[in-house]
Amino acid sequence: MILVTNDDGIQAKGIQALVSMAERHGEVVVFAPMGGQSGMAHAITTREPIFLEDRGNQGGTRYYACSGTPVDCVKLALNQVLDRKPDFVLSGINHGSNTSSSIIYSGTMGAAIEACLHGIDAIGFSLDTHRADADFDASVRFAEQVLLKVMETELPPYVCLNVNIPEIPAEEVKGLRVCRQTKGLWVEEFVRRQNPDGKSYYWLTGKFHNLEPEEQDTDQWAVDNGYVSVVPISVDLTAHGMIGELKNLGYESR
Amino acid sequence: MILVTNDDGIQAKGIQALVSMAERHGEVVVFAPMGGQSGMAHAITTREPIFLEDRGNQGGTRYYACSGTPVDCVKLALNQVLDRKPDFVLSGINHGSNTSSSIIYSGTMGAAIEACLHGIDAIGFSLDTHRADADFDASVRFAEQVLLKVMETELPPYVCLNVNIPEIPAEEVKGLRVCRQTKGLWVEEFVRRQNPDGKSYYWLTGKFHNLEPEEQDTDQWAVDNGYVSVVPISVDLTAHGMIGELKNLGYESR
Repeated sequence: MILVTNDDGIQAKGIQALVSMAERHGEVVVFAPMGGQSGMAHAITTREPIFLEDRGNQGGTRYYACSGTPVDCVKLALNQVLDRKPDFVLSGINHGSNTSSSIIYSGTMGAAIEACLHGIDAIGFSLDTHRADADFDASVRFAEQVLLKVMETELPPYVCLNVNIPEIPAEEVKGLRVCRQTKGLWVEEFVRRQNPDGKSYYWLTGKFHNLEPEEQDTDQWAVDNGYVSVVPISVDLTAHGMIGELKNLGYESR
Repeated sequence: MILVTNDDGIQAKGIQALVSMAERHGEVVVFAPMGGQSGMAHAITTREPIFLEDRGNQGGTRYYACSGTPVDCVKLALNQVLDRKPDFVLSGINHGSNTSSSIIYSGTMGAAIEACLHGIDAIGFSLDTHRADADFDASVRFAEQVLLKVMETELPPYVCLNVNIPEIPAEEVKGLRVCRQTKGLWVEEFVRRQNPDGKSYYWLTGKFHNLEPEEQDTDQWAVDNGYVSVVPISVDLTAHGMIGELKNLGYESR
């Protein structure tokens, strides 16, 4: 069984393309947010109830729409509704890339990481465009390549995949490229305005600042240069290389 | 300058204890959510405006309350309001522990990770209790030990600290312990009820399942056994050890 989710909502074009592809490879069930949940990262809904709507069966695939976050979707599916553990969780295809540090804000990847914590092979997919008429059907063939590879090889525990697809004609894509997360961040991020009462408010905006644009082993370079980036993501956030160093620096003294 | 934030809101007991401690070590400015933002992880507010209230100056410390998430607080402070980069960002003290995979859902750690992305030494602190009358003043002495150590040694780029403090009398705490993130997850997570119209809804609940309770190098073990856990956290989520393996498995074939 393949569980499909996303953060753009159950009506988004990207998830429909992903569902159509997944249906060629197994039984599919969809748990997706009722509306947009971009930027919700790994957030969970704890201060209000979560509603779940059974949206019925379409061509053998069952659809559930959830009022909560992408992580809520995965949790409800795994802990409450499904009678067995899915073999794979696919998240996306996101409208907009999740390269570099964008992964940290991404609800798409939040859902994939949650599934990974539950011991399920999980992949988040993103297409590098926000155009409403983006061609997800072309890009989904690369998602399919990655899924088939994961079905063949399985992923190690505590590792999931962050896959980003460039928005260029499929025949111009140079192939899949295994990468690392680019060092980068979002800067200059707010527009300040006043509401009708004269009270200031802010809208988050900003632009991405790549701290290592020349590094060809990064996901941002890959997508900018016509590759599909595949980054193995660790759910263990420990900076293992630093443990010995912190001990040497005396962090353990009382 | 020391920027202090949290996810329990500007009125929480934990942040007040942290501010009082920080004031002994430099100029302090507070940017904290107006209300509770637990479980908001690294979420950002993109679909609605963010309001920021200047709550004035108390004893030399300036307070700002933000309608958004902990990450919004850090972004507004760094990109919009402060005239220079803080030297340190302290987040917490959280009401409840953020050991093991709880770090992934934690707004406290979301704020610390955001600061770390901006190149600032950042520490998230959590106290292992949800009791309303918890003694944050006792626990803050351990937060101070960690801060002083960071001031003395600095942290490497892309690494921040996740510090969890057991809720036992301070004199019984065995000291600081440098650890790794425990492998574990939350399971059985929903209570199902019906609203007055008969519509089902879910409340997130559940309990933590430690997958390696005997491992003494983990943060959960440390806190359960009377230590303050100090885990170095990487903002780079890449599973670097897997890159070569994925290439060997043929992930790069077209």
